[in-house]
Amino acid sequence: MSITVVGSVAFDAIQTPFGSVEKAIGGAATYFSVAASFFTPVSVVGVVGDDFGAEEMKIFAGRTIDTSGIERVPGAKTFFWRGEYGYDLNVAQTKDTQLNVFADFKPKLGAVHRDPNVLFLANIDPDLQYEVLQQAGRPKLVALDTMNYWIDSKKASLEKVMRSIDLMLINEAEVRQFSGEANLIKGARAILDIGIDTLVVKRGEYGVLMFHDDRIFAAPAYPLESVFDPTGAGDTFAGGFLGYLASRKHLTEVEMRRAIVFGSVVASYNVEAFSLDRLRAISRDDIESRYREFRALTHFEDFELEA
Amino acid sequence: MSITVVGSVAFDAIQTPFGSVEKAIGGAATYFSVAASFFTPVSVVGVVGDDFGAEEMKIFAGRTIDTSGIERVPGAKTFFWRGEYGYDLNVAQTKDTQLNVFADFKPKLGAVHRDPNVLFLANIDPDLQYEVLQQAGRPKLVALDTMNYWIDSKKASLEKVMRSIDLMLINEAEVRQFSGEANLIKGARAILDIGIDTLVVKRGEYGVLMFHDDRIFAAPAYPLESVFDPTGAGDTFAGGFLGYLASRKHLTEVEMRRAIVFGSVVASYNVEAFSLDRLRAISRDDIESRYREFRALTHFEDFELEA
Repeated sequence: MSITVVGSVAFDAIQTPFGSVEKAIGGAATYFSVAASFFTPVSVVGVVGDDFGAEEMKIFAGRTIDTSGIERVPGAKTFFWRGEYGYDLNVAQTKDTQLNVFADFKPKLGAVHRDPNVLFLANIDPDLQYEVLQQAGRPKLVALDTMNYWIDSKKASLEKVMRSIDLMLINEAEVRQFSGEANLIKGARAILDIGIDTLVVKRGEYGVLMFHDDRIFAAPAYPLESVFDPTGAGDTFAGGFLGYLASRKHLTEVEMRRAIVFGSVVASYNVEAFSLDRLRAISRDDIESRYREFRALTHFEDFELEA
Repeated sequence: MSITVVGSVAFDAIQTPFGSVEKAIGGAATYFSVAASFFTPVSVVGVVGDDFGAEEMKIFAGRTIDTSGIERVPGAKTFFWRGEYGYDLNVAQTKDTQLNVFADFKPKLGAVHRDPNVLFLANIDPDLQYEVLQQAGRPKLVALDTMNYWIDSKKASLEKVMRSIDLMLINEAEVRQFSGEANLIKGARAILDIGIDTLVVKRGEYGVLMFHDDRIFAAPAYPLESVFDPTGAGDTFAGGFLGYLASRKHLTEVEMRRAIVFGSVVASYNVEAFSLDRLRAISRDDIESRYREFRALTHFEDFELEA
């Protein structure tokens, strides 16, 4: 009933049409673990410099997050990303990436990380993702995220790790990029054919499609009047989704669909403020209340009931 | 329990990545009426030239479609549109528009058209839409479609007719164009504030959002592996949606949501072939079967049931 995430802990500089922030806490593993901790204990495996101190580590405090797997490299700096969004908040423009400690990151799973219920390989070099898999025991579910950069530069490595995992998260444009198919459904099926049980396609403000066992589940995004900062939306979605799944005994389709909705709920909160500010403020009650709003948003009756 | 549509009957030349057709039957009123006729009797008010003969009129035959409101102008040609789609099938490029008989179209509602249950003003000049409204009796529901061209060139006329109707269909880009809001939800609320009860926002392959009484209903599009020709998708959606509504005694929210799904079902069939070829081939059973698939696609349980 636990989850391990391997990925980045970072500082972000973000500019949106609604404001900017120069040194906010970010990173896929950070967003993921805080989101997942609403549902299940999480262990984080990552690396920081000594600029990521006690004050910054408070982001994980007061939650069921084990940070013993976060290595601190003395005299080095934490991974840094600078991004900008225009009014089309679906697209981030990367203005600067400083790998810093991340350049030599060799993830090491300690005893506590080796046998989680769920293992999440956040977006890092697919060769590293494969190495992590070799160190892991037998998690019930291994999930993978990636990005256009690795599809472009390390597709063979990515396919190798894809053949060893159960579930992949990917965004819509990456499905087309990976598969070479203009049609999203055809592209998704081509990726499943590599040997993945479940494919979760993220479509930003249009929601999510989950492909599983020849069935498709479509969930909309929560309709927000104010999207303030989309940074981390994909990772908080993954955190809510996999965190909920890790908390369940059986990974049935019913549970997987609920998990998609919980992921969408947590992501919808996350984009309402900069960095993890909104995630820090919400409670499990907030999450359950918005879950019910998702039901009201999507529910419709069979036509036979009154036809 | 009937519906009247005022709009174009046309010939289309269409090119998609999957093929092309030089003179296919098209037009908003044509797509709309065939789609609506699966649910309710329809009357069409439009105009054609004498190139739209008995052979072409067969598109309406064998259905509960009254064509007495289709005026035929001797010696003149039918409205013609030439469009092209790339692999992004969401965007049509207009290559040619020949208004022909449509240039002088003055819609006249006969006795049979004046008091339908539902009146649909398909995309034509908003001044004409307003004139039609003056001729109409008191339909239970008046619905309106428009396009970017009228928002750009006749916004005041459009707003005038908008203040006299109940329901508006509009696509996502047009919401942003009309409202000047980057955020779709804010933009939709600004349009509702003009005095419309229900706004239906069409998002192509991403489905539909319906805004009604401070509530939002989100329906995905049916996931298709092969979208052959998107022409008429919006009008067949409107036909299924409003056709179903016109067939109901009470326009409750439950019925409106069902109607959105029926509209989505009919539109999803329509894009599977050129022109109205697919609509001509399907039955009410096909529609009901895909309605059930929409339920399977979107349904998820409340988390309390097993949590």
